[in-house]
Amino acid sequence: MTILNQSTYEPLTEDTAVKLALQLSLFDTDAVLKCREIGDGNLNLVFHIKDEINQESIIIKQALPYAKVVGESWPLTLQRNKIEANALKVAANFVPELVPEVYFTDEELAITVMEDLSHLEIARKGLIENHQYPLLSKHIGTYMAKTLFHSSDYALDPKVKKEKVKEFINPELCKITEDLVFTDPFFDHETNNFEEDLLANVHDLWNRTELKLEVAKLKKKFLTNTETLLHGDLHTGSIFASSDETKVIDPEFAFYGPIGFDIGQFIANLLLNAISIQSQKREFLYNHVSTTWSVFTDQFSSLWETEGVEIYTKVPGYLEFTLQEILEDTIGFAGCELIRRTIGLAHVADLDGIVDHGQRIQAKKNALLLGQTLIMNRKNIVSIDDLLQEVRSVIQND
Amino acid sequence: MTILNQSTYEPLTEDTAVKLALQLSLFDTDAVLKCREIGDGNLNLVFHIKDEINQESIIIKQALPYAKVVGESWPLTLQRNKIEANALKVAANFVPELVPEVYFTDEELAITVMEDLSHLEIARKGLIENHQYPLLSKHIGTYMAKTLFHSSDYALDPKVKKEKVKEFINPELCKITEDLVFTDPFFDHETNNFEEDLLANVHDLWNRTELKLEVAKLKKKFLTNTETLLHGDLHTGSIFASSDETKVIDPEFAFYGPIGFDIGQFIANLLLNAISIQSQKREFLYNHVSTTWSVFTDQFSSLWETEGVEIYTKVPGYLEFTLQEILEDTIGFAGCELIRRTIGLAHVADLDGIVDHGQRIQAKKNALLLGQTLIMNRKNIVSIDDLLQEVRSVIQND
Repeated sequence: MTILNQSTYEPLTEDTAVKLALQLSLFDTDAVLKCREIGDGNLNLVFHIKDEINQESIIIKQALPYAKVVGESWPLTLQRNKIEANALKVAANFVPELVPEVYFTDEELAITVMEDLSHLEIARKGLIENHQYPLLSKHIGTYMAKTLFHSSDYALDPKVKKEKVKEFINPELCKITEDLVFTDPFFDHETNNFEEDLLANVHDLWNRTELKLEVAKLKKKFLTNTETLLHGDLHTGSIFASSDETKVIDPEFAFYGPIGFDIGQFIANLLLNAISIQSQKREFLYNHVSTTWSVFTDQFSSLWETEGVEIYTKVPGYLEFTLQEILEDTIGFAGCELIRRTIGLAHVADLDGIVDHGQRIQAKKNALLLGQTLIMNRKNIVSIDDLLQEVRSVIQND
Repeated sequence: MTILNQSTYEPLTEDTAVKLALQLSLFDTDAVLKCREIGDGNLNLVFHIKDEINQESIIIKQALPYAKVVGESWPLTLQRNKIEANALKVAANFVPELVPEVYFTDEELAITVMEDLSHLEIARKGLIENHQYPLLSKHIGTYMAKTLFHSSDYALDPKVKKEKVKEFINPELCKITEDLVFTDPFFDHETNNFEEDLLANVHDLWNRTELKLEVAKLKKKFLTNTETLLHGDLHTGSIFASSDETKVIDPEFAFYGPIGFDIGQFIANLLLNAISIQSQKREFLYNHVSTTWSVFTDQFSSLWETEGVEIYTKVPGYLEFTLQEILEDTIGFAGCELIRRTIGLAHVADLDGIVDHGQRIQAKKNALLLGQTLIMNRKNIVSIDDLLQEVRSVIQND
């Protein structure tokens, strides 16, 4: 069988995945390869292939032509594999130490062969298990500053930037976010999924016209603002971590969008973890939020000053205006993420994993309340300290 | 010679243009065709072909692979012909009565064969000759409401909209606007072109940091906001008119951008005409500005209410927010247009044609002052009456 010569898509098996690895000469000729499919089967096949002689290993990720979430299934473009591979390559130009190395891609087969990171943990899982990852926020702040700056009009020739906007047009994956983050949770929609005890809170939320108006503005920004190339799904489940390493994976939702979206999703997922644990243990997460923002702004500002090609980056006040707008967006998008992870289709284990019923419901109420507060007050929160003060004041009542 | 069988681009001549018209069977078989090239030779060839027997006529427009402006020449993509033809076809879906009919296009030859509109006048030329075009603003308000609404996320499935964003990515033509409208006039750049007597005013303008900051924000919006498919160059030179007809031509700058850009350019060019004539004759132009906005908002609002597919169009306050944002952008973009048409590379005959030196300089100073005022005050001008009051107060001193 010659996988690489075939011209039509076909899902790999553990056998054909090994054959592909051999064809690509990614292992020694005398390697003894062991292959396991380790994906969750919802969106992608993920093959872990290891040479049992020298312990070297790789990952082969292959997109499936459908998405399965909570029993539902709908067709989904294989193109997302190309988007993901290209986004990983773009990021590798600026933060090679923070993304997996890509060894090989094949658009037809929708596969990416890349570095195996299984010595690390998924950050969400680790955070739930009380791992603190002291370097997580410094690394993610750096990842965001560098990737978000370098793909923007601040740093690129506008013609080059527009070709990249075109390359990363990603309608199907964006639609998932438009529906599941910005729309369905704010209306009585069948995709929503929440516990009975939240019904009154959810109805209150659905009845808040002024909240919907603010979400409309945030959704509009997501739909129409091509500020830079985003990861597009930068929650703690898209990050591998250890005490000294951090790697951002799975940018299949990458597209040109507003900078605050990536930052907001990451911060919201730190806050979802904070909400799910005892209040006296939250301080390290608040520190992560604070460090994320300060590292991001320090490095973004430094790049702006030294590598900005847009002439207006030299005009006093423009950087400050841009950072203020990013902060406002960050807070608003974080608010949407908090709400949709509590009552929308895709939940987080941080909240759902709380065993005690009363504690879990209280945590979810806190998430809903904090989400709404952030969306409504985002223009008045002008620093990361303000944000943390707001967070503390909303969720102290548990 | 078989024009349509050739596979490489070649500029048409009057002879080959006629042969093409015959091949396309656009005239009777016994037609006696007369052809004249009537373009200005800067960007496109324009052939006017007429059957001398029945007086029927067509236009063949062919893009040239370069742009010539004020003696300079630079290469320019032929792709713009395809953009223009496709934009005309999109507009014809919504306002067929306000654009020329397209009979044929050929991407390889970069030609569009279309309705001959030479029974009409270019609106700029007519306005300079004191023609008032009573229906101009009603028609352009309608054109803008319908074209700008129907290509936006308010009206389109977001996946369809993103494919259109991709189709209309237009880096080279956008770059011309980015440079000549938003950048060069605000810096001491070699493309600028202004009269000696304006030197002090221009230096004042270049020294205004707070002005540059506001222009930076407007340029950012132009660079990053894909609200809808714009005409992209909607000044009075892109409009054919008579007392009862209006036709919008030349959308080769079409791309997905902010709604206020088209409206701002049109209104600015009405104001440039107003500035160039005696104050007591300006009222009909102010009425045109007012009618443009009221017709646009009435029809846009009606479409929003009846044909909005985005669920948030049903949320109270979102339409009002959107219109307010469009007005603010309109005023800011109009300010940039006033300035660049006075001191930038591409002037307008309204101002340059004022014979009396003193009057011309005063008019240009008024244009510069009004442009800056609109840019700086755009957030405080919350209605079209406010705008006209501001205009009157700035340019009354002549």
